[in-house]
Amino acid sequence: MKKYLAEFIGTFWLVLGGCGSAVLAAGFPGVGIGLLGVSLAFGLTVLTIAYSFGHISGAHLNPAVTFGLWAGGRISAKEILPYVISQIGGATLAATVLYFIVTGNGSQIGDFAANGYAEHSPGKYSMGAAILTELVMTLMFLLVILGATNEKAPKGFAGIAIGLALTLIHLISIPVTNTSVNPARSISQALFVGDWALSQLWLFVVIPIVGAILAGLIYRYFGSEETA
Amino acid sequence: MKKYLAEFIGTFWLVLGGCGSAVLAAGFPGVGIGLLGVSLAFGLTVLTIAYSFGHISGAHLNPAVTFGLWAGGRISAKEILPYVISQIGGATLAATVLYFIVTGNGSQIGDFAANGYAEHSPGKYSMGAAILTELVMTLMFLLVILGATNEKAPKGFAGIAIGLALTLIHLISIPVTNTSVNPARSISQALFVGDWALSQLWLFVVIPIVGAILAGLIYRYFGSEETA
Amino acid sequence: MKKYLAEFIGTFWLVLGGCGSAVLAAGFPGVGIGLLGVSLAFGLTVLTIAYSFGHISGAHLNPAVTFGLWAGGRISAKEILPYVISQIGGATLAATVLYFIVTGNGSQIGDFAANGYAEHSPGKYSMGAAILTELVMTLMFLLVILGATNEKAPKGFAGIAIGLALTLIHLISIPVTNTSVNPARSISQALFVGDWALSQLWLFVVIPIVGAILAGLIYRYFGSEETA
Amino acid sequence: MKKYLAEFIGTFWLVLGGCGSAVLAAGFPGVGIGLLGVSLAFGLTVLTIAYSFGHISGAHLNPAVTFGLWAGGRISAKEILPYVISQIGGATLAATVLYFIVTGNGSQIGDFAANGYAEHSPGKYSMGAAILTELVMTLMFLLVILGATNEKAPKGFAGIAIGLALTLIHLISIPVTNTSVNPARSISQALFVGDWALSQLWLFVVIPIVGAILAGLIYRYFGSEETA
Repeated sequence: MKKYLAEFIGTFWLVLGGCGSAVLAAGFPGVGIGLLGVSLAFGLTVLTIAYSFGHISGAHLNPAVTFGLWAGGRISAKEILPYVISQIGGATLAATVLYFIVTGNGSQIGDFAANGYAEHSPGKYSMGAAILTELVMTLMFLLVILGATNEKAPKGFAGIAIGLALTLIHLISIPVTNTSVNPARSISQALFVGDWALSQLWLFVVIPIVGAILAGLIYRYFGSEETA
Repeated sequence: MKKYLAEFIGTFWLVLGGCGSAVLAAGFPGVGIGLLGVSLAFGLTVLTIAYSFGHISGAHLNPAVTFGLWAGGRISAKEILPYVISQIGGATLAATVLYFIVTGNGSQIGDFAANGYAEHSPGKYSMGAAILTELVMTLMFLLVILGATNEKAPKGFAGIAIGLALTLIHLISIPVTNTSVNPARSISQALFVGDWALSQLWLFVVIPIVGAILAGLIYRYFGSEETA
Repeated sequence: MKKYLAEFIGTFWLVLGGCGSAVLAAGFPGVGIGLLGVSLAFGLTVLTIAYSFGHISGAHLNPAVTFGLWAGGRISAKEILPYVISQIGGATLAATVLYFIVTGNGSQIGDFAANGYAEHSPGKYSMGAAILTELVMTLMFLLVILGATNEKAPKGFAGIAIGLALTLIHLISIPVTNTSVNPARSISQALFVGDWALSQLWLFVVIPIVGAILAGLIYRYFGSEETA
Repeated sequence: MKKYLAEFIGTFWLVLGGCGSAVLAAGFPGVGIGLLGVSLAFGLTVLTIAYSFGHISGAHLNPAVTFGLWAGGRISAKEILPYVISQIGGATLAATVLYFIVTGNGSQIGDFAANGYAEHSPGKYSMGAAILTELVMTLMFLLVILGATNEKAPKGFAGIAIGLALTLIHLISIPVTNTSVNPARSISQALFVGDWALSQLWLFVVIPIVGAILAGLIYRYFGSEETA
């Protein structure tokens, strides 16, 4: 049970930190952290949990990661459901906490940090561009995760590589989809925004998982030994 | 005595670096470092002290951290008072040095880098939002600290994880409370600002300590072994 | 063959991440990541691949790096061609993916992230300044790579040092040449821009390779042992 | 001789990267890296050289560091002169290269990245504020260096801690003095600016060295063992 609680806490932190920085601080007048600060925040949630709870649960914090690790032969199929439930639970609690903070100065949540495409893409990118982006970003995210946790990779550095990979992914793709690569993150925001966010949610659940599974299969070519 | 001097120096650096960057550089015309730069500065004070003085004092630099480590079974109760006194002393000296620098171009200190809520929140967030924010941020900060210094976590990386956790916390929450999670930091600024900063100071002393103690108790579930 | 596929994937990531962040996110209205974000993105592509695929291919991701390592006595001449072909292939696929994303909101690619000098330098720097910049930047990049992978350097940290060296190089030199130091990156963009980018491409192929080879020869003075 | 050449190359990189990013990229229209980017660049010059040439020369890259390490009992007095000469030589060559790049688009060098106080302080801070700032910043820089290279500190992480300490110092103090803490850096810029920069140069030579020596003496209380 410890590992499921670790996933719950870790995904709570990912959504509170990543989406929280986006909603609260990105556009703060004059000194806002911008997309660069949001990108850093998302990555640091993963980096900080990887070093503090990674030895308990592996710090997936993301259903796509869990599916990708399964496809890569790192975890068994029966782990998937409890991991994913813990992740969605933690993400939803984070969105709830964020809701109370954001509305604490009388603001509305607006689009929160929901993911979207076409008219709901930050830069108005089409559904096709969104699918291509989420697919490639999640695929590369999982290749980095699988490679950095391989037993031949330098010991201890995986948390830095994986956390900063998520920062990098946000530096590239926030303008396209607001960056998901993580169904739990997308679900948590869509639940509060409802409406268009719910009707576009399928893309941010299906595509990251497909990209992750593809990465798991590709990585089998390179070897599937996991570091201790 | 070495460890108390280390805490004094380290907390001096935390306040001079974190609050100093906020007051001197955040809003510098045209090229200011913004909230992102301030967030990085706070985190780097902890990271740099963790690697240079962490082997002497553990680099708490924060009364809430000291209380949280006690609640988590890492230090004994009799350590608390001398640690906290050293921290407040170092923080106050830093505020004094910063006072002389800031006023060195004829400026007033204004609100310095004091923490506040409601009308004194940077983004005008309510007392309730401030309490929720400081509670959750300090709680998560301590969970990262306790996890990253657990004997099963990767050796040597705790300073990176903990320092960047403080960066992350600032990326999220400066707009809400100017981010405390550290009573010594808040006290040092309120002493110079007086007035409203002193009357709101209770929140930034009580809530971070409560959040930290909660984290210490929660973490006992995951194990309390500390790395050497 | 694994190492050539690793180079293909890694250089794909370098161009997609570095050039992608530049084209998609650098100038995003109000919250764009700017040249600082682009610099970070380029560096993080190398850092993330170094820790995930470095144990397979060495993570050159750049023909100049391959030539420099050969000049420094780290790889044999017969490795150069397959490495360079893999790198150019990965870079070109990345540019193709980026083309489909960028045009997904109806935008033109404009100058993409092509490198240029004189009237095509971001800051209108002359061909002479461009040659000097690319030469010195690539030379220093290779000295950092050769030194950080020397058997006497701290184990495991090379990926951080080398990735962040590329970040540093971009922080300095984007205004001069849009920063190449990597012929594969330059070729991939020029293929899509055509015209002036193709006619200026020689500089960004020749000079980085010359700088890298010089570094390899200089570093022989310091020793050529590579870490395992 | 290898270590003197390493110091020459390393200080060349510090000035080219730190001052170069300031002059070329800090204020680039619309997407400039600002003081945050410059702070990062200075720190990354040290971080990258620490991991690549640190095992050869110790990567001082700064006469104040050399004096501080001597005061702390880490190096012998006869090392000081050749180290300092190498550092000033490398810094001056970097300023020369930077001169040719900067003027390559027809610009004047203006104040280059020279350090100043009073009317030549970026934020018009007095000479007293400048002395206090440079003294405390260099003192803390050396305490971090001496602590992070102590044999009891985590192995391998000193380069990260020390490099990012320099980033932190710049995040705080660029508005006050343009940040020196390094006489070689200040000399190299003043030689090209002449005039006021030369007449204010004494402060940026004397005060950092005094601060560093103070740190060396203070650190003797904590122990002077150096890590291998």
